[in-house]
Amino acid sequence: MPVVGMVGGGQLARMTAAAAVGLGATFRVLSESETESAALVTHDVTVGSHLSLSDIAAFAAKCDVITFDHEHVPGEILAKLESDGVLVRPGSGALRYTQDKLAMRERLSALGIPCPRFAPVASVADVEAFAAEAGPADGPGAWPVVLKAVSGGYDGKGVWVCESAAESEDVLALGIALMAEEFVPFRRELAALVARSPSGQGAAYPVVQTVQVDGICREVIAPAPGLDPDVAVEAEAMALKIAAELGVTGLLAVELFETRRGGLLVNELAMRPHNSGHWTIEGARTSQFEQHLRAVLDLPLGSCVPPEGTFTVMANLLGGTDPDVFDRYIHVMAADPAVKVHFYGKEVRVGRKIGHVTIVGGPDDDVESVRDRARRAASYLRWGTENGD
Amino acid sequence: MPVVGMVGGGQLARMTAAAAVGLGATFRVLSESETESAALVTHDVTVGSHLSLSDIAAFAAKCDVITFDHEHVPGEILAKLESDGVLVRPGSGALRYTQDKLAMRERLSALGIPCPRFAPVASVADVEAFAAEAGPADGPGAWPVVLKAVSGGYDGKGVWVCESAAESEDVLALGIALMAEEFVPFRRELAALVARSPSGQGAAYPVVQTVQVDGICREVIAPAPGLDPDVAVEAEAMALKIAAELGVTGLLAVELFETRRGGLLVNELAMRPHNSGHWTIEGARTSQFEQHLRAVLDLPLGSCVPPEGTFTVMANLLGGTDPDVFDRYIHVMAADPAVKVHFYGKEVRVGRKIGHVTIVGGPDDDVESVRDRARRAASYLRWGTENGD
Repeated sequence: MPVVGMVGGGQLARMTAAAAVGLGATFRVLSESETESAALVTHDVTVGSHLSLSDIAAFAAKCDVITFDHEHVPGEILAKLESDGVLVRPGSGALRYTQDKLAMRERLSALGIPCPRFAPVASVADVEAFAAEAGPADGPGAWPVVLKAVSGGYDGKGVWVCESAAESEDVLALGIALMAEEFVPFRRELAALVARSPSGQGAAYPVVQTVQVDGICREVIAPAPGLDPDVAVEAEAMALKIAAELGVTGLLAVELFETRRGGLLVNELAMRPHNSGHWTIEGARTSQFEQHLRAVLDLPLGSCVPPEGTFTVMANLLGGTDPDVFDRYIHVMAADPAVKVHFYGKEVRVGRKIGHVTIVGGPDDDVESVRDRARRAASYLRWGTENGD
Repeated sequence: MPVVGMVGGGQLARMTAAAAVGLGATFRVLSESETESAALVTHDVTVGSHLSLSDIAAFAAKCDVITFDHEHVPGEILAKLESDGVLVRPGSGALRYTQDKLAMRERLSALGIPCPRFAPVASVADVEAFAAEAGPADGPGAWPVVLKAVSGGYDGKGVWVCESAAESEDVLALGIALMAEEFVPFRRELAALVARSPSGQGAAYPVVQTVQVDGICREVIAPAPGLDPDVAVEAEAMALKIAAELGVTGLLAVELFETRRGGLLVNELAMRPHNSGHWTIEGARTSQFEQHLRAVLDLPLGSCVPPEGTFTVMANLLGGTDPDVFDRYIHVMAADPAVKVHFYGKEVRVGRKIGHVTIVGGPDDDVESVRDRARRAASYLRWGTENGD
């Protein structure tokens, strides 16, 4: 069997390890420590840094192909590995668009993909100019303005919503590369998850609705309830086009805003299994983790379709104040035998993603009651009460 | 998180390891070697023998509870572990009924559970007497007679169908403890899979149809097509009763004959995840592997129900003559993106169980065409042609 190596030992690698068991592929992980989420469950763990060329090169020498559970391997390391003949999937040419948001915006705009308005900014004057350009001619400008770190942000980190030039000053004072973006008063957030193989095959999961709180994904409903079928097709086609144009191999998650007029704007890209796809473990014929493995191995892609008549709700489990999550399993499992609990084996810290719960609904279930059940389960696991957040 | 140790490193332990990843329980395996199926994918592998008290005791010292992927740990070892305070689930008191088929038949009969007629036999005269008793008064006796090894058989090994006293002589010459059983001209074979927790909670999966060839399970259809609902309930109730009366903790698989008159007779028992339950990974809300973990951890049991309107077909993948199964993935996956391939990482030998494939059907699919797709996939993976066996 071929050997897939994943750089990064977080929960995405952990769930990929479980998918590799079923697929029969040999799976190795390069983890920062022996106690990371994936390192706790993977048979073959190499401890090393994703910032070290020598660590990754030594790891890659034991693998047929390497892939990633995050986007933080520096581009120059990726390029060197590739020039040394390592199969890197997705490759450096694609990954740079997850590492440099400005490059991503410029590339997507050139492809005609709808994005929020954006501009690089280096000073308060730049931010004011950006706001003024978008606002009515005689008005105060289009505030708020979103400032984003060009690289390195995730889960709401590296994003600041500034109501005024004065607020932007504090962000600019951080001294990091920034870009301004139009604040989009969206109706809701969606995500389009697709896979693309080196042979060029593409496959699209149903478009989902995601619910973020403070920049962290809290809930995913698959497929997105009440989404106009034309908009769903548009989102899937857009994601497949981005995957093809950027040369993605593996998964591509496209986070989208559905605007108040029902249009779509691309928010972020990720080229790996994604939180918006955890529902696929139970809810789709092929989980995103198996799909990612199939794509990086250049195997034909699996069906993305849920069993007919089903839908799925996933709620993230964030850390609370009591570290003993297992102690609370008993209540959740007794209260709702159809809840599937996933725990990542991570140290519990307040607000940290430490697991998720999934419920698959059938034709007789309604979405709101399944959402309620999923929220109650996640809340109980977090706080010991069903009515937390 | 609690630590579950599984004695035995076969594919059942391998699939339990994958389920433990999701559940978040820590999983260890005691394996005969580093290259057994489960040892290849489990983070924490102990190499040792299931026939050695000291090996198992040392392994158990690192676990909160131990369980099994087979029934071959000697009863006296189990009893010693229990008397030393090890949590052994299922316990020796239950497992003995999987290790001694005569004791199983006697116990089930005492409970009023319908079984084929049986008797211990030690000589050809015993076998002839058994046959004569069952046949018409003036006839040649009720041949064929089934001879079974009282202990140690599996997958058709240890079972002989004897057409005559002369044939039974060869089996008796093996010098092992034997029992005779009535040959049941069944309509089909069924299996009832249930779980029971130490707290006494029980849960039953839908009754499935199993198809055996030469004593080896080749195909499972879940739920059993066209099964009289009253018979299904009777089978589930029977399995739950056996689990409760025998004090099973964990899974209990009850292999059944559906007789030509539509009645049920118990064939075999297994107290572990079972081939007839592999379909649950994709087809039921809780897989049998997670369910077994929940039961041995005394957690509330999960829902056994398939998503509404779905059914599942599983076909076993047996070894062919070409060891490179992965090379044939590409055809199977391209031909049918809804097929889920499971490969156990075992060395390929002709006729050996090395994996399985699963397809979940929906309301618009018919059972026979899904069976046909599953058979084609398994055949291609085995032989490189869709029309093998």
